[in-house]
Amino acid sequence: MKKRLIALAAGFALLANAALAQTSLAPVKRQPTYETAAALRDRALSDTTAWDLTADLTTSVGPRPVGSPAMARAKDWAVKTFETLGFSNIKVEEFAKPSWTRGAESASVVLPYDWQLAMIGLGGSVPTPPKGIEAEIVVFSAYADLLAAPQGSLKGKIAVVTAPMTRTLDGSGYGTAGIARRAGPSEAAKRGAVAYLVRSISTSDLRSPHTGGTTYADDAPKIPAAAIGVPDAELLERLAAKGPVRIKLNMASSVDEKDVAWNISGDIVGSSKPDEVLVIGGHLDSWDVGTGAIDDASGVAITTAAAKLIGDLPRHPART
Amino acid sequence: MKKRLIALAAGFALLANAALAQTSLAPVKRQPTYETAAALRDRALSDTTAWDLTADLTTSVGPRPVGSPAMARAKDWAVKTFETLGFSNIKVEEFAKPSWTRGAESASVVLPYDWQLAMIGLGGSVPTPPKGIEAEIVVFSAYADLLAAPQGSLKGKIAVVTAPMTRTLDGSGYGTAGIARRAGPSEAAKRGAVAYLVRSISTSDLRSPHTGGTTYADDAPKIPAAAIGVPDAELLERLAAKGPVRIKLNMASSVDEKDVAWNISGDIVGSSKPDEVLVIGGHLDSWDVGTGAIDDASGVAITTAAAKLIGDLPRHPART
Repeated sequence: MKKRLIALAAGFALLANAALAQTSLAPVKRQPTYETAAALRDRALSDTTAWDLTADLTTSVGPRPVGSPAMARAKDWAVKTFETLGFSNIKVEEFAKPSWTRGAESASVVLPYDWQLAMIGLGGSVPTPPKGIEAEIVVFSAYADLLAAPQGSLKGKIAVVTAPMTRTLDGSGYGTAGIARRAGPSEAAKRGAVAYLVRSISTSDLRSPHTGGTTYADDAPKIPAAAIGVPDAELLERLAAKGPVRIKLNMASSVDEKDVAWNISGDIVGSSKPDEVLVIGGHLDSWDVGTGAIDDASGVAITTAAAKLIGDLPRHPART
Repeated sequence: MKKRLIALAAGFALLANAALAQTSLAPVKRQPTYETAAALRDRALSDTTAWDLTADLTTSVGPRPVGSPAMARAKDWAVKTFETLGFSNIKVEEFAKPSWTRGAESASVVLPYDWQLAMIGLGGSVPTPPKGIEAEIVVFSAYADLLAAPQGSLKGKIAVVTAPMTRTLDGSGYGTAGIARRAGPSEAAKRGAVAYLVRSISTSDLRSPHTGGTTYADDAPKIPAAAIGVPDAELLERLAAKGPVRIKLNMASSVDEKDVAWNISGDIVGSSKPDEVLVIGGHLDSWDVGTGAIDDASGVAITTAAAKLIGDLPRHPART
């Protein structure tokens, strides 16, 4: 979601004051700023605004991908929230934002027997033709094996990368494994593949597959790409070791190049330098298959709640 | 799956010998039996037959509910497996076994906004009418609350029980929570409900719902029943706290009352009392949405592998 542009912005100036204090003010003069920060921190720890906003956005609005009716509801929710919390100069800036919308989608093993896979299209994937794509699969248990495959070696095939995500304390396994999702479709297409499946970038052993976006390279055909559940990927590995496996893939995603989204902002007007602005915020949109509580309702809620607490100070910070 | 009747049976007599030894033989005479048991145990620990059979059944045959083509393949697999492992008197006994087959199924929130739920029909559920059932929901966060609801209070409603399953070391939380799945549909129907949804009997926080069977009481209308994902159930709780929620449910399950299944057995013929038979085995069928590795491919595989090791002894046990 890093490239999403929709910000729910709330301007405030506390951090700027603190940063300046580090270099230009003597210790005795810094003290009031630190006391204010400590008081804000303590108030935030007992304040439920961020929690309440997260619960309300995920419940009242729900999943809110760009281009959905829910995204428009989320915009209205943000305006109402800023109003309720007492922000000033509430603005809604519309901007062009092409949208990708998931359609009906399915993937089934059809050889050696019929078996419906747990699958989910990758965000940004092109659709299959209406009647779907059916082809034999080639399984790569490591992403490097796909990269090592010669040009043309996947002609007419569905490439399947089944590399597992490594569980790590810091979550870095997600980024490492994610390359197979982000770049795999084009690498497979360069080698002739007609579609691409990747083992869900997940450490779960349940079938629920994880979506996430993919990006097509300019120098490769765009082929449909989806994630499959972890047990489904493991089954494909075992099946492919025994003989030919064919999969039928149907995806009906669509893109609206002329879609729009919105930046919604509210101000805590600066007390002495109102024309200088600091911006914090989160992205209001979410994936379509979850409520986006973490990605990024909580980001929106925490920054909004922090700005609200700052706005409640006896004197606003210098900057907006 | 406890009531499933399909057994992959392998007869052998070691346990009988050991049991008799406990009461009737002096220590010095028991020793050969114990030595044999210890040797079998050690051989089993380094033997991969059970693992190989589990992998092969779940991979080559896959999900194998009664009434599916895969169930017939599983029968053939069992016969071939017994042949390969050298069992005698391999038998296939056909018996009547009504089958339940899942059809297309879906559930969506339609008020206050559209949201497709992660759902799975409960095994044995009746279908909805072809055009589905749409109704307002009544949410019960505890199963006891449903039981406390007055007769008629759910008239025309979809009852939703969102009680969580408690995580326990011994797995007993599954049984405790499962009552809402097993008996809930009829309890809701007695109170007038037109359909029933239960929070997945699962401790996972992923959306994948868990199926499992339900049983209708004789004195209640049979209403369609499904499980929904844990996050979906939690969302319904939060939505229902804010206002009316309506759900559209479609399920197209079917029952074939005249279906059949098979007991498949192979013998390790007893060396001195071949007409006395001990039977071990597992059930060959599985749910439709997984490969049934634990339920019960591993049971089939472990008992078959144990019998095979016993059959490999220099002298077969007394009984078949």
